[in-house]
Amino acid sequence: MASTSPESAAAAGEIKDPIHIRRLELSDNERGFVALLSQLSACPDLTASEFATRFGELAAQGDDHVILVAEDPSAPERRILATGCLFVERKFLRGGGKVGHVEDVVVDAAARGSGLGLRIVRHLVEIARDAGCYKVILDCTPELRAYYAKCGFVEKGVQMAVYF
Amino acid sequence: MASTSPESAAAAGEIKDPIHIRRLELSDNERGFVALLSQLSACPDLTASEFATRFGELAAQGDDHVILVAEDPSAPERRILATGCLFVERKFLRGGGKVGHVEDVVVDAAARGSGLGLRIVRHLVEIARDAGCYKVILDCTPELRAYYAKCGFVEKGVQMAVYF
Repeated sequence: MASTSPESAAAAGEIKDPIHIRRLELSDNERGFVALLSQLSACPDLTASEFATRFGELAAQGDDHVILVAEDPSAPERRILATGCLFVERKFLRGGGKVGHVEDVVVDAAARGSGLGLRIVRHLVEIARDAGCYKVILDCTPELRAYYAKCGFVEKGVQMAVYF
Repeated sequence: MASTSPESAAAAGEIKDPIHIRRLELSDNERGFVALLSQLSACPDLTASEFATRFGELAAQGDDHVILVAEDPSAPERRILATGCLFVERKFLRGGGKVGHVEDVVVDAAARGSGLGLRIVRHLVEIARDAGCYKVILDCTPELRAYYAKCGFVEKGVQMAVYF
């Protein structure tokens, strides 16, 4: 009788979830990271130098700025399938409290419906919790309320913006 | 006939707007800065050391993190009357664009109605513009939509939150 334990499944080479979620790396510029963001907002290409500069600026923030990406390591070119960002804001209120801000969550159109976005958001929320944040916030369109409710988010207010 | 030009009014010592808006200083811990924030959110006192540590962390972010305060230099103790914060988020999208986030705007209860909050927010928006941000965003309660509309903000979405 075949065992159904995850260990034996792995031993038999049956990889049920091949998607790997990890932090952004400099080399992800060649794996479609910026093209993926263009599915969310206007996103002209960056030169390798521009990408490296911004990557370095954000890396200098250490664990106060985390970009997660999802990839299928077995896929050709290892294109980035999804991404999401968390940055930590340090405040004076709440006893010198910290707030996590989730930004720029996007899943490649061809990979939607597989739960990748939710996995990334949940992961970001856990990173914020581990960092000692007292809350995590994000802004979204009204249509995405139910989506983020699956990660424990509740509606708190309205987002206002000035565009230059 | 008395002149009505601002210059001659100033020359005559008639200071019509004594309120000074400037960046937060370390010594503002003794001018009620944290107590002012407690009118916005839970805000236990910080020790001088805790305040200095957080001040230093934020100062290290340079112009990417600006806290403005309003004070009346002629008032006893020079208590802080209002404050607001702007931090700049660096992104990969929008050609390596930047977004200004306005946070923690509060006016002392005794100073409300004098336009101090709007002056601070408009000042923060101009700082964001000068820093090259393509937009400035903030979250607020629905009741404050009209208030921020006076500074050019329009409603863009909903704010979602997870509290730990």
